[in-house]
Amino acid sequence: MAKLCGRSTYLLERPPVIRAFAAVGGQKEKEGPLGDRFDFLSEDNLFNADSWEKAESKMQRLALKTAMNKGGVKKGDLNVLFAGDLLNQCTGSSYGLREFMAPFLGLYGACSTMCESLLMASVFVDSGLAHLAGAVTSSHFCSAERQYRYPLEYGSIRPPTSQWTATAAGAVLVAEEGPYPRVEIRRACAGIIEDPGIKDANNMGAAMAPAAACVLRRYFQESATAPKDYDRIFTGDLGEVGSKLLLELLARDHIDLSAVHDDCGLLLYDRERQDVHAGGSGCGCSASVLCCHILPEMLAGRYKDVILAATGALLSPTMVQQGDTIPGISHLIHLHFAEKEGD
Amino acid sequence: MAKLCGRSTYLLERPPVIRAFAAVGGQKEKEGPLGDRFDFLSEDNLFNADSWEKAESKMQRLALKTAMNKGGVKKGDLNVLFAGDLLNQCTGSSYGLREFMAPFLGLYGACSTMCESLLMASVFVDSGLAHLAGAVTSSHFCSAERQYRYPLEYGSIRPPTSQWTATAAGAVLVAEEGPYPRVEIRRACAGIIEDPGIKDANNMGAAMAPAAACVLRRYFQESATAPKDYDRIFTGDLGEVGSKLLLELLARDHIDLSAVHDDCGLLLYDRERQDVHAGGSGCGCSASVLCCHILPEMLAGRYKDVILAATGALLSPTMVQQGDTIPGISHLIHLHFAEKEGD
Repeated sequence: MAKLCGRSTYLLERPPVIRAFAAVGGQKEKEGPLGDRFDFLSEDNLFNADSWEKAESKMQRLALKTAMNKGGVKKGDLNVLFAGDLLNQCTGSSYGLREFMAPFLGLYGACSTMCESLLMASVFVDSGLAHLAGAVTSSHFCSAERQYRYPLEYGSIRPPTSQWTATAAGAVLVAEEGPYPRVEIRRACAGIIEDPGIKDANNMGAAMAPAAACVLRRYFQESATAPKDYDRIFTGDLGEVGSKLLLELLARDHIDLSAVHDDCGLLLYDRERQDVHAGGSGCGCSASVLCCHILPEMLAGRYKDVILAATGALLSPTMVQQGDTIPGISHLIHLHFAEKEGD
Repeated sequence: MAKLCGRSTYLLERPPVIRAFAAVGGQKEKEGPLGDRFDFLSEDNLFNADSWEKAESKMQRLALKTAMNKGGVKKGDLNVLFAGDLLNQCTGSSYGLREFMAPFLGLYGACSTMCESLLMASVFVDSGLAHLAGAVTSSHFCSAERQYRYPLEYGSIRPPTSQWTATAAGAVLVAEEGPYPRVEIRRACAGIIEDPGIKDANNMGAAMAPAAACVLRRYFQESATAPKDYDRIFTGDLGEVGSKLLLELLARDHIDLSAVHDDCGLLLYDRERQDVHAGGSGCGCSASVLCCHILPEMLAGRYKDVILAATGALLSPTMVQQGDTIPGISHLIHLHFAEKEGD
């Protein structure tokens, strides 16, 4: 049974197991360093649909279907789905997953959604309220640019601090049991909204870094662990600008992350070769890097204990137009690779 | 500890207690039949802010602050907040609640949000992951009309099936313990997305009724209870059109709700006197009716067992413009009035 440590760190004592996972991506993701690790890639960013939004729904559907196939899971086996995305009214999730006819609890955590949904799925599985729970999210470069900044057709210039919203989706199935070797979710920590006062919709990294620093700082304290206890600590999509800022912020509290830190936004694309400026972003960024890189590396035995702190900028074009700032949030999960029982 | 019944009905065996609650409303809500029951009412629908969106954030802030004052709760006591609203990127919640500096798990369930947040809060409290959790939501007529239909300045004609988005917010604090007499959350049920194929953004009642029928049908089965076991069964905001449809849909399965059914959308306004067409709607509708009517009536001993099934239309203007339909969802909680221990 789960135990509360401190204010919002959840120690999952009957640790939920990652049964299966899948990642879906577009053309740019195919050309990136993780291109050959995706389960499904489409050269057509419309995924054969007739709008970007419908394409994004299709990506979530494909990701969940693929994860279910890989895990030998039927529709009726799903006790609950936790999902969300960047589209207004989270239509990537609700329209994408409606055909699964599963109990559905919609989330909005911007690009932190993969960790928020995994946190929820773990809590429900650990507390016996689900035998099997799904965590799904997505983002699409074209739907996000149109909604948050400018329609692509405007051909607007992107400043160096801007990040590239991933056209990607990820789905993870969390179960109460599973065969060894396996990846377990051992702890989770719910983040606090931090607002550093950034007003530039093209500088998400700086808007999110304080929230990531806050959740990591608090998690280390509440779990009585330190960076050295982890083989790798991944942040969601801070990119180049936000990653530097995160290390600086934590260094002020004498927490040195530099030896173990990686950022999903810096792993998904090759910044030398691909025109992504400060790195990747979007709910699909950390979701797909989790499913294409982090989990496979863990299952291959290369990492034993890993933190994933997905980061979200709670950016609203309406609020930015009204002169307000961009608050950030970050939720965190601790993944553990167990080779055999008691490991 | 919580127990899973069937697919997604949660039996809360150490039932979480409603510690305090508060409702905030605008001018029209003041003039309605529950007008004298709100904790805070503003004759100025801008709530002294300089945009409708900022007004909505302020309403959530006010609702939570008032509930905290009523419950004698300090900011640091909150283990976690569950909140969401209708605004794009749920800014009513994230901008409204950022100053509380509490762990924050954002939700998107459209007008079902009050039940979704209470379901989550109950699960976290029951499973020991929060001593105290908050559930908050809001809606605002002016921000919702602009976002979902037309700016108010267009003066567009509203058809008879249309509903009036409540300018209201509600906040409920859920605790692991509390003095008697008290209202407990005994069960909760997570709903499934139902899409009846409605394409008319002015007919939310019809879009949501099948989801309400689905969650009620399934809940009765999974909890082995029937309408006769409840003093009152409230739906969120089906209004006149959706309420009729709900009773018809359930009658087909030989479930007769007519003797105990009420709809929050039909309670908040006086349809004879106030120009709300088919009734009230919006996240703030069921949230404020819960806090102004249902909970006070229960604490006065008039209802012992109550179901609240908040209903959400997962309406997206973008998807409707692309010719897609409006899926609905409904989540449910069972409230119990306990006069003394063992009651």
